[in-house]
Amino acid sequence: MGSTTTIRYDSYPELDRPILIEGLPGIGNVGKITADFLCEKLGSKKFASVYSESFPPLVMLDNDCVVHMACNELWYVKDVNGKDIVFLRGNYQGSTPEGQYLICDDLMKDVFLRMDLSYIYTLGGYGTGQMVTEPRVLGAVSDIALKMELEEKGVTFSPGEPAAGIVGASALLIAFGQMYGIPSACLMGETSGYFVDHKSAVAMLQVLESILGITVDKSDLDVKSQQIDELTAKVKEIETTQNNREDLGYIG
Amino acid sequence: MGSTTTIRYDSYPELDRPILIEGLPGIGNVGKITADFLCEKLGSKKFASVYSESFPPLVMLDNDCVVHMACNELWYVKDVNGKDIVFLRGNYQGSTPEGQYLICDDLMKDVFLRMDLSYIYTLGGYGTGQMVTEPRVLGAVSDIALKMELEEKGVTFSPGEPAAGIVGASALLIAFGQMYGIPSACLMGETSGYFVDHKSAVAMLQVLESILGITVDKSDLDVKSQQIDELTAKVKEIETTQNNREDLGYIG
Amino acid sequence: MGSTTTIRYDSYPELDRPILIEGLPGIGNVGKITADFLCEKLGSKKFASVYSESFPPLVMLDNDCVVHMACNELWYVKDVNGKDIVFLRGNYQGSTPEGQYLICDDLMKDVFLRMDLSYIYTLGGYGTGQMVTEPRVLGAVSDIALKMELEEKGVTFSPGEPAAGIVGASALLIAFGQMYGIPSACLMGETSGYFVDHKSAVAMLQVLESILGITVDKSDLDVKSQQIDELTAKVKEIETTQNNREDLGYIG
Amino acid sequence: MGSTTTIRYDSYPELDRPILIEGLPGIGNVGKITADFLCEKLGSKKFASVYSESFPPLVMLDNDCVVHMACNELWYVKDVNGKDIVFLRGNYQGSTPEGQYLICDDLMKDVFLRMDLSYIYTLGGYGTGQMVTEPRVLGAVSDIALKMELEEKGVTFSPGEPAAGIVGASALLIAFGQMYGIPSACLMGETSGYFVDHKSAVAMLQVLESILGITVDKSDLDVKSQQIDELTAKVKEIETTQNNREDLGYIG
Repeated sequence: MGSTTTIRYDSYPELDRPILIEGLPGIGNVGKITADFLCEKLGSKKFASVYSESFPPLVMLDNDCVVHMACNELWYVKDVNGKDIVFLRGNYQGSTPEGQYLICDDLMKDVFLRMDLSYIYTLGGYGTGQMVTEPRVLGAVSDIALKMELEEKGVTFSPGEPAAGIVGASALLIAFGQMYGIPSACLMGETSGYFVDHKSAVAMLQVLESILGITVDKSDLDVKSQQIDELTAKVKEIETTQNNREDLGYIG
Repeated sequence: MGSTTTIRYDSYPELDRPILIEGLPGIGNVGKITADFLCEKLGSKKFASVYSESFPPLVMLDNDCVVHMACNELWYVKDVNGKDIVFLRGNYQGSTPEGQYLICDDLMKDVFLRMDLSYIYTLGGYGTGQMVTEPRVLGAVSDIALKMELEEKGVTFSPGEPAAGIVGASALLIAFGQMYGIPSACLMGETSGYFVDHKSAVAMLQVLESILGITVDKSDLDVKSQQIDELTAKVKEIETTQNNREDLGYIG
Repeated sequence: MGSTTTIRYDSYPELDRPILIEGLPGIGNVGKITADFLCEKLGSKKFASVYSESFPPLVMLDNDCVVHMACNELWYVKDVNGKDIVFLRGNYQGSTPEGQYLICDDLMKDVFLRMDLSYIYTLGGYGTGQMVTEPRVLGAVSDIALKMELEEKGVTFSPGEPAAGIVGASALLIAFGQMYGIPSACLMGETSGYFVDHKSAVAMLQVLESILGITVDKSDLDVKSQQIDELTAKVKEIETTQNNREDLGYIG
Repeated sequence: MGSTTTIRYDSYPELDRPILIEGLPGIGNVGKITADFLCEKLGSKKFASVYSESFPPLVMLDNDCVVHMACNELWYVKDVNGKDIVFLRGNYQGSTPEGQYLICDDLMKDVFLRMDLSYIYTLGGYGTGQMVTEPRVLGAVSDIALKMELEEKGVTFSPGEPAAGIVGASALLIAFGQMYGIPSACLMGETSGYFVDHKSAVAMLQVLESILGITVDKSDLDVKSQQIDELTAKVKEIETTQNNREDLGYIG
């Protein structure tokens, strides 16, 4: 299928071999929370909107009843510890597998290859289905040379995890990065996957701080992260109680 | 995906910065009833048919057994209180989300942008799931500047309504209008959504009369509108009776 | 969507304003049986195969284990009572609504418009859901002028039948015929729709004989048609018995 | 639909009228096991990767956590008993029927037709739904002339088998071979279809050895093939026991 991805530029920033950070919706929304938070904290600026027939034919209304079409957005920030960064953000991934491929293929060919990217980091969640108290950040790389570099920054590489592979934009952009020789990694914040996981996002942010050589004020996230701690503790308590009851069941 | 929308012109009218009014099938068919009624009352003329692989592969028969292919239609009328109007009408929306996008994208690029539209009004229903006695007409706009203008014409702007956003051609045409800088608004007639709602259409027509500075004879619609009133009253009566029974249930 | 319909010609016959007869699978397979039977009886010759990604990705094996790819076929015969005829035959319709549209659109533009068709007859079934003893042949036309002409040939025009319209290739080809000004009609053999209906096909053939001013030996079909008669009688008998039992039920 | 199949060459080997052998996932994975095994045993070399929006938007991780995008691969080996061979291998077929068609159509037009193929052999499984002790290798051909040639190599031709035809890449490539005049055959290893069937693959390999005039060390497969024998024996034993019990049921 030919695609009709439409990229509309607000401006066309001059960037010096930028780093691409992708954070679209996914498991526990870990990637999206992290990318959105970092993008805002670094004072980034939106420079383009990405439209596609594979996004839902939908507009959302803001508080002024002004419409916002379903899209993805490109933001940039210059000179973050000497590096330029581009963010791919949004509330949607393509609605179909084909659509996801075509959008990423178009973005790579029409936008990212022209930018001469130095690195690609795609951010996602790694859903374990179990409560996680100390979320790890797992990694997958386009090239084995990247592995040691990222291990030093706190990324865990665990052979065979995730066993089911990686899907969606996070998978495709790292794969296209590999195809075109751009050092690319997918970072996956460990999460139960049962709720939007700010704690996993904090763990991911720490890794990104280390990679970029910066520190950002994460206090906004810390509050939500503590709520995750409380939620996790409560779920564990309930599970323990239930298990005890079941163990004692034959007495009762 | 590339699209094969086919637009066949019966004629190509000379129009002076026309207003586009879209009214395709949707919730309570409010938009469709309103657009069809106004189009007919103003003595408009069909000038083009729109065919697409995203409409069902279907012909309907009229009373002479002459076939009519599933399509959308473009109608125009000149000099309505000094303004030219184009209507987008029909019995179908694209069968898939992708199809809806591609049809609207093609219409915008191939037809509407060439017409130098002055305004876009897309008409739809706002389904509340509850009986509505005095239907409001809610609005969503491409630009905040339009809001006050429309409030003066009787449009209600309610932050966060509809919470689920707007979908389909009504959403896409206003979004594309926004994209290309055409002042655009979606008007949504409040309706239970349970039946074809002529009363909500009357409310919508009153707003459009105010916007266009005209009055049209709505007596045809008034009869059907009264039937909606009776239907609404009956449903409410039944609900009340049921609730009373439930309240009294423990006595009986 | 752009389409990749592939038309491969075995030969390119010189034809003089041919009549197109379409008979693809459908309700009771009435159209397909009729077109296949007439095509063979008239000694027609295949001249092209039509391939599409919308047909199933399938080959069938003949008795020599030679493969035959899912496709549609074009056959022709010259000088049938002075008229040339092209048949569109096959075991498949496009698997999706979009596919059906694209195949017919491609056939019309790439093949049929170049042939300067004099008439289009699309053949289908009209499923009533009830046993039919004397199947009518209903008609739908591209132009009211065709109606009287066909009524004289034994076609029944019944306002509002079929109420659900006509779908698939039979609908699309007559609609495209209408679009391009080719006199076009859909003939629909009345059928219960519960089995492959050779009796309805015989009725349809009689109409086509009348239209073309020819007679063909239908004895092969007559045997199968009588089997339909017996089947219909049996079903009616069972229904009557059941109804009687139900009527007497309160006595038993 | 237009397609965006992407073929990326690692190298572009000079080949002399190569034989194409396709072995992608399918019934009992017989075709895939056979093609993968032969490809490796002959010391073949990968020369291209095939990407498509119809493969899942997925990367899998190897033990180094290096990502591998869902794709098909082209491998070649020169001078196998005087013949050059190209293998089409992979872990995926297109996710949709349309996708399967488009990938094969693109491969045929962009890769295989340029190679001036001498033969196409597509490898698949023929699922019988019953335990098979001595799997046959059934054949289907593009041209009846190939039949006797293959019968001499141990291929069974059984009119009407498989009754449901052949689907997927194995069907399409032989069909396109037929279309373009390339002698093409589909070989189908008989299998229950209930598990990955190495025994059927051994039978298929023996046929391919005979066709290519070579012998390969199949000892690796023989072990797994024996496991299939044991599994088959066990299932048969259980079935017999169950049947006996059922026969005796009225006594118990």
